[in-house]
Amino acid sequence: MKITQRPTSKINDVDFNNLVFGSTFTDHMFQCDFVDGKWKEPEIVPYGPMQIEPSAKVFHYGQAVFEGMKAFKDDDGNAFLFRPEDNWARINKSSARLAIPEFPKEYFMDGMRKLLTMDNDWIKSGDGNSLYIRPFVIATQNGVSASPSNAYRFMIICAPAQAYYSGKVKVVFAQKFSRAADGGVGFAKAAGNYAAQFYPTNLAKADGYDQIVWTDANTHEYLEEAGTMNMFFRVGDTLLTAPTNDRILDGITRKSIIKLAQEAGVTVEVRPVSVAEIKEAAQKGKLLEMFGAGTAAVVVPVESFAHDGVDHKLPSDVSDSYAQRFKKALNDIQYNRAADHHGWRVKI
Amino acid sequence: MKITQRPTSKINDVDFNNLVFGSTFTDHMFQCDFVDGKWKEPEIVPYGPMQIEPSAKVFHYGQAVFEGMKAFKDDDGNAFLFRPEDNWARINKSSARLAIPEFPKEYFMDGMRKLLTMDNDWIKSGDGNSLYIRPFVIATQNGVSASPSNAYRFMIICAPAQAYYSGKVKVVFAQKFSRAADGGVGFAKAAGNYAAQFYPTNLAKADGYDQIVWTDANTHEYLEEAGTMNMFFRVGDTLLTAPTNDRILDGITRKSIIKLAQEAGVTVEVRPVSVAEIKEAAQKGKLLEMFGAGTAAVVVPVESFAHDGVDHKLPSDVSDSYAQRFKKALNDIQYNRAADHHGWRVKI
Ligand SMILES: Cc1ncc(COP(=O)(O)O)c(C=O)c1O
Ligand SMILES: Cc1ncc(COP(=O)(O)O)c(C=O)c1O
Repeated sequence: MKITQRPTSKINDVDFNNLVFGSTFTDHMFQCDFVDGKWKEPEIVPYGPMQIEPSAKVFHYGQAVFEGMKAFKDDDGNAFLFRPEDNWARINKSSARLAIPEFPKEYFMDGMRKLLTMDNDWIKSGDGNSLYIRPFVIATQNGVSASPSNAYRFMIICAPAQAYYSGKVKVVFAQKFSRAADGGVGFAKAAGNYAAQFYPTNLAKADGYDQIVWTDANTHEYLEEAGTMNMFFRVGDTLLTAPTNDRILDGITRKSIIKLAQEAGVTVEVRPVSVAEIKEAAQKGKLLEMFGAGTAAVVVPVESFAHDGVDHKLPSDVSDSYAQRFKKALNDIQYNRAADHHGWRVKI
Repeated sequence: MKITQRPTSKINDVDFNNLVFGSTFTDHMFQCDFVDGKWKEPEIVPYGPMQIEPSAKVFHYGQAVFEGMKAFKDDDGNAFLFRPEDNWARINKSSARLAIPEFPKEYFMDGMRKLLTMDNDWIKSGDGNSLYIRPFVIATQNGVSASPSNAYRFMIICAPAQAYYSGKVKVVFAQKFSRAADGGVGFAKAAGNYAAQFYPTNLAKADGYDQIVWTDANTHEYLEEAGTMNMFFRVGDTLLTAPTNDRILDGITRKSIIKLAQEAGVTVEVRPVSVAEIKEAAQKGKLLEMFGAGTAAVVVPVESFAHDGVDHKLPSDVSDSYAQRFKKALNDIQYNRAADHHGWRVKI
């Protein structure tokens, strides 16, 4: 690995109490080019702009995938990642679906470790503070013909983050637009999946909602996931969540919560969840909680959901909230405040 | 419009008889930035790389749309575009769906006209020769949070082209993967739609096919379009093509062929076309032709189609081939060899 250090850190210019999510980057970044059929020597260089031709395939054909992960620091200054190998495996699953060559595990893990060691001061301790890490791959071949690129760049950039969302959100269940097709790329963290959600989300925001919960594109009868979060529904004391498939991202927060809930003796049903049953549960007062789960936001409780133009409120406080409980359980593992029986926490 | 001319043209370095589609670019490019809520003064500059941050939203969320169009030259050296206002209207339709601000018509038309005047020598006369023109828009705001960009760059780059495909193609009808969801972005020329097709297309190629004809994602029973072409089916003397909807691109070649065919007295049915009826027509010897239609390729005849693992051959020569006839009719208008009753041809 070739390393070029920034002469002086820019960390003192940053106000860590007023961070806008994902907009301030650390001193360094990791990059590795795929050329002539293989990944070349990776390097770490100062974070900054790059030169790229307007004909680069990423601009025209959207051959780009990414990951989102976080580093956490405990009060003794030790830094940790959370299930990083799962992010490595997932970016390669996304890449495969987009005809992008897979990235070697050692390059991913060693590059991240070295980068985070160099930019260690950017990881702040304290609950809610973290370093958001964005590995991604883009197609860099020049040429406007619609075929897979023969050149790629793998990069890791990092942005210090405070807690992502504040408070509860209002969601609306999708009835017209959709996020993913059967046989499509919905399960991949493919760049194009996100742009496709912006316009419908703008419409939802104009109607007073914060987020859309996507439903299956065929019938709009089953609840799938939100823009960057998997969804959980608590009906009575049972926790429901949709199974992953080729339309739904296999979220690491989701599967960690399923595990923690099962270990806590909560009945978890991983099965298609219909709009009808959630509305019925809400009407009968049995829908106690709904929350989104994802790396950026950890857990986001839902205040109300809308369907057919009708708003349904969720109870404003529930005793033993699952959202709060599993958020805390996850954070306790992430910040090294609790034992980690699963081997999820990885010291940097 | 600000203009910066290249000191010397690179045209003499180009072998116009051995062009790889979309990989050689002309001397200049057009660009216009959207900042602070509006499109700034457009400019024409020498074609070349640009500086962009790794956190630019286009790399992460795929907010990018494009167009594909061509300029043609007649034997007297006059250059023409084909229905360029339709491309302008369509890129804005694509942009709207991806929450990208629309681009003003004067900027588009004047910019293109000026650019093509400056790079006029790159448009070669002679059948099959053209200048492929690629307008596109990318999201340039720096920041890895999944929300619409507040900054964009609109660009036009141009690549001289010879005829795109040679000969007939073997296609396979999609039965597992799909291209677009109901309520999705299939009708838009959104960058992510293309990357999503590369992996399934690689699989099809490994099986000996050139292209996939996509079917509806719900049932795979209806034929939609190919990767960069709309599809036509000739059953007896009737020409069939799928209606456009939110999954299918409203192709300019497609609608021009529909018009020319209708005017020539051919019965054209624009309606859902089922796999079953095409197979049945093939078995009865009534499927006389199948062809793709799109700007890059104009018309591409199909040699055989596969479904359920069975190859179905099309007749190798048909008297009065619609594919040949409408390709010629279109080319004659484009190259100024025939009268243009529709106002499709626009002199540069
Ligand atoms: C579409 C989508 N669903 C769900 C998630 C949550 O996944 P994870 O918990 O791995 O962050 C994300 C964010 O990564 C996402 O982009
Ligand atoms: C998905 C898709 N379908 C069809 C077409 C054909 O459209 P047009 O005839 O306007 O080039 C294209 C190419 O532009 C395309 O990308």
